[in-house]
Amino acid sequence: MGREIVRIMGIDPGIAIVGFGIVDKKGHQLVPVQYGSIQTEAGTDTAERLKSIYETLLELIDRYQPDAVGIEKLFFNRNVTTAITVGQARGVIMLAAVQKGLTIGEYTPLQVKQAIVGYGQAEKRQVQEMVRMFLRLQAVPKPDDVADALAVAICHAHSFTLNEKLSR
Amino acid sequence: MGREIVRIMGIDPGIAIVGFGIVDKKGHQLVPVQYGSIQTEAGTDTAERLKSIYETLLELIDRYQPDAVGIEKLFFNRNVTTAITVGQARGVIMLAAVQKGLTIGEYTPLQVKQAIVGYGQAEKRQVQEMVRMFLRLQAVPKPDDVADALAVAICHAHSFTLNEKLSR
Repeated sequence: MGREIVRIMGIDPGIAIVGFGIVDKKGHQLVPVQYGSIQTEAGTDTAERLKSIYETLLELIDRYQPDAVGIEKLFFNRNVTTAITVGQARGVIMLAAVQKGLTIGEYTPLQVKQAIVGYGQAEKRQVQEMVRMFLRLQAVPKPDDVADALAVAICHAHSFTLNEKLSR
Repeated sequence: MGREIVRIMGIDPGIAIVGFGIVDKKGHQLVPVQYGSIQTEAGTDTAERLKSIYETLLELIDRYQPDAVGIEKLFFNRNVTTAITVGQARGVIMLAAVQKGLTIGEYTPLQVKQAIVGYGQAEKRQVQEMVRMFLRLQAVPKPDDVADALAVAICHAHSFTLNEKLSR
């Protein structure tokens, strides 16, 4: 069997900024493909912002053709208003992924930290520095949402096996 | 100017059950057009459930061509996990509405009670009975989500003026 490449897209959901990071898993190596953020205007209607996130994400999936998507689960200690707002963004993100036939992996910040740094109490900076090293980047991507999305992508790449890809 | 009809769709969001209620506002009269629920299987993936809600709602909008949509805002005293789950469903519902070019009104349970019964501390049963009377129904629609959706539709019909329709 030849050397397969699995492409993973990691997403850090939000209404103002959605971070995304796409990495290729070649054997045990991880190669960054593209990363950045979808940003929406604070003044506009929530529904319009959700539409913008949804449509941009569909375009990104079409362009980069990932095999799977990893999404950060929300902090459960955040307040309820934030949870609803981010939940709404998360809803349209999951919809875009499932409409494109992609499997979705969900990871709490704790799981991401454990996968990247090795323990769940790691600080944000440590996670970001590990992401930079894993992907051989010159600097930590900004804003934080982008680095977080890449961390989720790496986390999902670790748990996503070739078998899962072939069985789909 | 002829007598215009404004058609309003009310929605009570959720992941297991989405209640919907469509009413026509003819002058000061409200006439029920259709009401019911979109239900999703508990065992299936969240993303698949969101897709099912989204697609069914698009079909309902195509079939009944409402002029506007009213959506219930979430209880802010519910727990965060519930808020995320319902928020996700709310996200795909808002997306479907905005993609169809519909304006969205949002109402808290307090606002709905005030609009229907006249005071915010009204009990669920009182609201349901007023919905039944307003729409001249034989019985209160079941499950509660359907009656709630009709209540939101009535609430939105009260605040939605013909000018808004004409100015769109």
